[in-house]
Amino acid sequence: MDKELSSIHYDEYLQLKKILDAQHLRSVGFNKPAHDEMLFIIVHQVYELWFKEILHDLGSVMELFSEGTVIESHIGVAISRLDRISKIQKILVDQIDIIETMTPLDFLDFRNYLLPASGFQSFQFRQLEVSLGLKRERRISYTQCSYSGVFSDKEQKILDELEKGDSMFDLVEKWLERTPFLQFEAFDFVEEYKKSVGLMLNREEQAIESADYISTQEKQLRINMMGETKTYFNSIFDEAIHDQKMKEGTLKLSYKATISALLINLYRDEPLLRQPFMFLQKLVDMDELLTTWRNRHAQMVLRTLGQKIGTGGSSGYDYLKTTADKHRVFYDLHNISTLLIPRSFLPELPKELKEKLDFNFSKDKS
Amino acid sequence: MDKELSSIHYDEYLQLKKILDAQHLRSVGFNKPAHDEMLFIIVHQVYELWFKEILHDLGSVMELFSEGTVIESHIGVAISRLDRISKIQKILVDQIDIIETMTPLDFLDFRNYLLPASGFQSFQFRQLEVSLGLKRERRISYTQCSYSGVFSDKEQKILDELEKGDSMFDLVEKWLERTPFLQFEAFDFVEEYKKSVGLMLNREEQAIESADYISTQEKQLRINMMGETKTYFNSIFDEAIHDQKMKEGTLKLSYKATISALLINLYRDEPLLRQPFMFLQKLVDMDELLTTWRNRHAQMVLRTLGQKIGTGGSSGYDYLKTTADKHRVFYDLHNISTLLIPRSFLPELPKELKEKLDFNFSKDKS
Amino acid sequence: MDKELSSIHYDEYLQLKKILDAQHLRSVGFNKPAHDEMLFIIVHQVYELWFKEILHDLGSVMELFSEGTVIESHIGVAISRLDRISKIQKILVDQIDIIETMTPLDFLDFRNYLLPASGFQSFQFRQLEVSLGLKRERRISYTQCSYSGVFSDKEQKILDELEKGDSMFDLVEKWLERTPFLQFEAFDFVEEYKKSVGLMLNREEQAIESADYISTQEKQLRINMMGETKTYFNSIFDEAIHDQKMKEGTLKLSYKATISALLINLYRDEPLLRQPFMFLQKLVDMDELLTTWRNRHAQMVLRTLGQKIGTGGSSGYDYLKTTADKHRVFYDLHNISTLLIPRSFLPELPKELKEKLDFNFSKDKS
Amino acid sequence: MDKELSSIHYDEYLQLKKILDAQHLRSVGFNKPAHDEMLFIIVHQVYELWFKEILHDLGSVMELFSEGTVIESHIGVAISRLDRISKIQKILVDQIDIIETMTPLDFLDFRNYLLPASGFQSFQFRQLEVSLGLKRERRISYTQCSYSGVFSDKEQKILDELEKGDSMFDLVEKWLERTPFLQFEAFDFVEEYKKSVGLMLNREEQAIESADYISTQEKQLRINMMGETKTYFNSIFDEAIHDQKMKEGTLKLSYKATISALLINLYRDEPLLRQPFMFLQKLVDMDELLTTWRNRHAQMVLRTLGQKIGTGGSSGYDYLKTTADKHRVFYDLHNISTLLIPRSFLPELPKELKEKLDFNFSKDKS
Repeated sequence: MDKELSSIHYDEYLQLKKILDAQHLRSVGFNKPAHDEMLFIIVHQVYELWFKEILHDLGSVMELFSEGTVIESHIGVAISRLDRISKIQKILVDQIDIIETMTPLDFLDFRNYLLPASGFQSFQFRQLEVSLGLKRERRISYTQCSYSGVFSDKEQKILDELEKGDSMFDLVEKWLERTPFLQFEAFDFVEEYKKSVGLMLNREEQAIESADYISTQEKQLRINMMGETKTYFNSIFDEAIHDQKMKEGTLKLSYKATISALLINLYRDEPLLRQPFMFLQKLVDMDELLTTWRNRHAQMVLRTLGQKIGTGGSSGYDYLKTTADKHRVFYDLHNISTLLIPRSFLPELPKELKEKLDFNFSKDKS
Repeated sequence: MDKELSSIHYDEYLQLKKILDAQHLRSVGFNKPAHDEMLFIIVHQVYELWFKEILHDLGSVMELFSEGTVIESHIGVAISRLDRISKIQKILVDQIDIIETMTPLDFLDFRNYLLPASGFQSFQFRQLEVSLGLKRERRISYTQCSYSGVFSDKEQKILDELEKGDSMFDLVEKWLERTPFLQFEAFDFVEEYKKSVGLMLNREEQAIESADYISTQEKQLRINMMGETKTYFNSIFDEAIHDQKMKEGTLKLSYKATISALLINLYRDEPLLRQPFMFLQKLVDMDELLTTWRNRHAQMVLRTLGQKIGTGGSSGYDYLKTTADKHRVFYDLHNISTLLIPRSFLPELPKELKEKLDFNFSKDKS
Repeated sequence: MDKELSSIHYDEYLQLKKILDAQHLRSVGFNKPAHDEMLFIIVHQVYELWFKEILHDLGSVMELFSEGTVIESHIGVAISRLDRISKIQKILVDQIDIIETMTPLDFLDFRNYLLPASGFQSFQFRQLEVSLGLKRERRISYTQCSYSGVFSDKEQKILDELEKGDSMFDLVEKWLERTPFLQFEAFDFVEEYKKSVGLMLNREEQAIESADYISTQEKQLRINMMGETKTYFNSIFDEAIHDQKMKEGTLKLSYKATISALLINLYRDEPLLRQPFMFLQKLVDMDELLTTWRNRHAQMVLRTLGQKIGTGGSSGYDYLKTTADKHRVFYDLHNISTLLIPRSFLPELPKELKEKLDFNFSKDKS
Repeated sequence: MDKELSSIHYDEYLQLKKILDAQHLRSVGFNKPAHDEMLFIIVHQVYELWFKEILHDLGSVMELFSEGTVIESHIGVAISRLDRISKIQKILVDQIDIIETMTPLDFLDFRNYLLPASGFQSFQFRQLEVSLGLKRERRISYTQCSYSGVFSDKEQKILDELEKGDSMFDLVEKWLERTPFLQFEAFDFVEEYKKSVGLMLNREEQAIESADYISTQEKQLRINMMGETKTYFNSIFDEAIHDQKMKEGTLKLSYKATISALLINLYRDEPLLRQPFMFLQKLVDMDELLTTWRNRHAQMVLRTLGQKIGTGGSSGYDYLKTTADKHRVFYDLHNISTLLIPRSFLPELPKELKEKLDFNFSKDKS
């Protein structure tokens, strides 16, 4: 008998009996049913389903990156999985429009019955944050009450284990650190980059000073801009400065990983670096969309609750708004942009290195 | 003891044990797990959850419209419920982007295990179509096989009952037919409208004929346009023509309901007609979004399957594309636009009627 | 001759000669063309076109609200114009996705040629902010340089005039203050509302204290929540507290206008209040979408520039992020939610008042 | 003097004097201004600006593909340009929501003044269609009138030239035909693929026949499905059948190009094929989004005009709906899905070929 061919019905495959029988309105038990409580339940269930899918995809990417060397074709797989996560995140943001069809007054019809349930008790969302690399010490506390009771012991244990292991951030950092092209025979990427930056800054400075057709105020502005940029360049020129910033907590990504990310961004057109570049972009997309979601979520809470305190005891809007910026994980990748220089100043790669970064097949053609 | 205050946890409230334990990948049982089957299951579960919410909202609107007279404030409620449905529908369309992250090749990893499950077996979607007013005889058959086996006996019975009762279309038609202002003392809306249309057409015709600075070709074009428009006006001027078209199946909305919808569209600025106008707009929104979803869904199927036949035995793309146009329910409301005339030709309402359509409070002001 | 019928061609009507001949790439003149500069120019031109439309719609709403009494049917018009603005704003947010297809490295190909042009020089955007009601003293300065030179003298004069006149915020405030139902014969809305709030709080307090099945920690949480809410209620119970807060700058909307907005939110189901309620909702939508746009814009800048300073000399990301929260205009309308109470505690309106809020026609029916 | 540093103001850079002075409402000249005409003009101008950007990006991709061999890194560039086009197209679809805020009645306030201007006179849109590869003989005529007068002689000449040259479709076809791996030493892709398909079909057939636990009806369904699929396979097995279909017009892509596209889809995980695969996906995205836009546009026209004839003399909705399906260019790429087989049946590539498709660098690692 060929097991593959056993029949299945849509309802059974999707286990709709469970899925569609999981909406129990509290307002029905206590009082008269509040029409909008159905929406409230369903929208949260939809969020949890999407979180499950995100964890499924993110988990698979982490697995691919857990190995000593990441196979080239796996970077392609990782890109498409992260792309899927981004597409889901977009929907997570957009569907806040649906929640906002519930007016504040309609919410009050059943809000009291929900105490002290709260989105902060979402285990999957916490799992996601920890998997990405949000550390406990960086997390902003949302209530004066201690955490106990938020998650079950079993869940808390899983989170503790997760935090001990490598997060997505850690895996990316390690992968970047392994990039072999920072030093290729006589070519020292950082040295060459330093020279280019110096040249660029010199040229700009001279140009500003000799230009007599722009106002003094504007000259000052341009010189300021250069000054601020220089301080960012310094932390790349000097590993000690970078490490100091890591201690202070303003940087999180290691020196070597940062250099590699810079190299990938600058030479993204070389065939071998194309996919790594896209991969880094997708990480930034994911981070950005999570921030967008947090901002949008905070707004929705402000609209629905005003200054009312959250059901879980958080300060509501103010708390959520703060996390948008502080709970970001891949901030350092956004910051790479500070270090980019125009293509016209880009140090040329040695011919042998360029060849290494190309396909075998290309050799035949030339 | 105050029952209201009994505590509840997020997980329990959302019944996450059921929700998050309802993803059983068939590919796990048969072969090695296909990573993308998780997405396939979850996206369909999300659809079913949203269908449940849509049915919940639509059902509540149908209830409000089932009574002999619809209370004015209920129209406001209906508008906001339909607005919610539209917002959900937008997400239903947009999340097709998520499904399309699954490439055709990835789908083949588990497609065979799903036979003969198919979206056509979605009971809730069928419920939605029947509730809106899609009649069995208008439905396009998607397979040569008979329907038996698609739904359980119990489900089929519910659908049969639904089809016997008043659909949303029927309720809207009856509500429109009850509009009391078509004939108000000496004011006969249809007669006045006829006169205005006559005036308008005459004026246009004369203008075209006497204009010697436009080309003959363009004159012809304009006269053609007028001719085609006239035939549409005729079915409103003559009830018999309208009824004939209903028999032929090109019109579905009764003569009286059509006239009322026209009146509401033309005099939407009168306070009493503002909400009914918005309500009609929301119905058109809903219909349009369902069509958009069908079109988008058909495209996605084409992309994923090409010309392969659907798991449920449908011809796939071609079938789905056809339903987009044919399974539309409120087509006649779209068509009201054909009958609109510019405001400058609008018959003036008698003072007494205008007053009836205003608020009590407004009288105090004047 | 009938002037109406003079022919026109698509190109001429849309003045495409101007529109499509307004993309002059600076990089062409200076160096080799940077492919992405075209996108950069076009996306900004599209923004300016949409700003023009927003100003057109907003201006028309302000005109309708400038008169002594706002005609009821004009509220309907205002709602649809604000709805249009929201729809445009959604696109303004979404099209940031397009800008982000320009990578930071591609931007560097022409960024230097743009100095010191900057989005801060957009006259229309400034006009929009001032029209909405953002006051100069509330505006956050984006650069150490003085403002001179940002706008031409003529433009600056227009902005000064605008700021002197009534902003949208002012007009809404005045309109709310004119609401005649706060005191209707023996019915004093604030007094009745106070009683209801007292009753509600009492009942909640008792319930919490007598409940022995919830933990002490949770009791404390609930009592805290009540405490914080009470302080918000106080500013409504006591006009002096409200005025004090206005002086401190934490509130901007006058006492009377706030009370009216509260009344409209609580009794939105009465026919006469339906449209005013929707109007207030649309204002909140607009405010929220502007905040969303600012957040999203800040993110995009972070991604493209990192910590680089903006072409106009602003600190870039940090500055933009701050304005998202501080440049909000209708914050007080969001805050109405704090003051809402469940429908079950809502004071009943006297029969005569309910009648005033209904349609003339409804009387015939009963 | 360093020309690069010459100052520029935002207004001047964007040529806002032209852009914001190009909205001349016809209704102002003829009658009283129609408020919504501003929206009508602006939305069309925005479309034209985006069309310009799309043509700019598409043109650059066509240039990259016009050379005898396409450099590998150029495929990456092409992908990001097509990705940008897709993002713009999404906005083109979404902003129809803005147009629909103009009600049919509001449109009538100025519609007559527009005759015979029409979207069909958009030169850029025609340019886009022709550039993609829509041939004159495939275009569906939208009016009985001849085309003369739609475009100026100069424009018509440009279109004629465009049509003579290679379209995007032609360039993609040629590029696919140049794929060198269809025959690699002893490995003949089509032969190997044939064997796999045979094996797969055999196995499925046996399984169906021997399965006695599925109903006869379902067996029939499955056998039907296999039958239909077989006919599609045949045109790949036999070049003559493919060529016959091309003559009949049901296929457009040459046999060799089709085979190459199939190979790329099946072996997309090989490093060298990754980017080509993504490139093909982006083409399908673009095609799909154009279809979505056409469908959505048709709907909007139905809603606004009902059965009224278009200003340019087209039948409006019916015409537009038809083009959605018929004016598609890359239909054959969608159809590749029909020919895909599960990975488990995929013929293994010879080791030497796999190596050719990998990076030089990878050799060092192993």
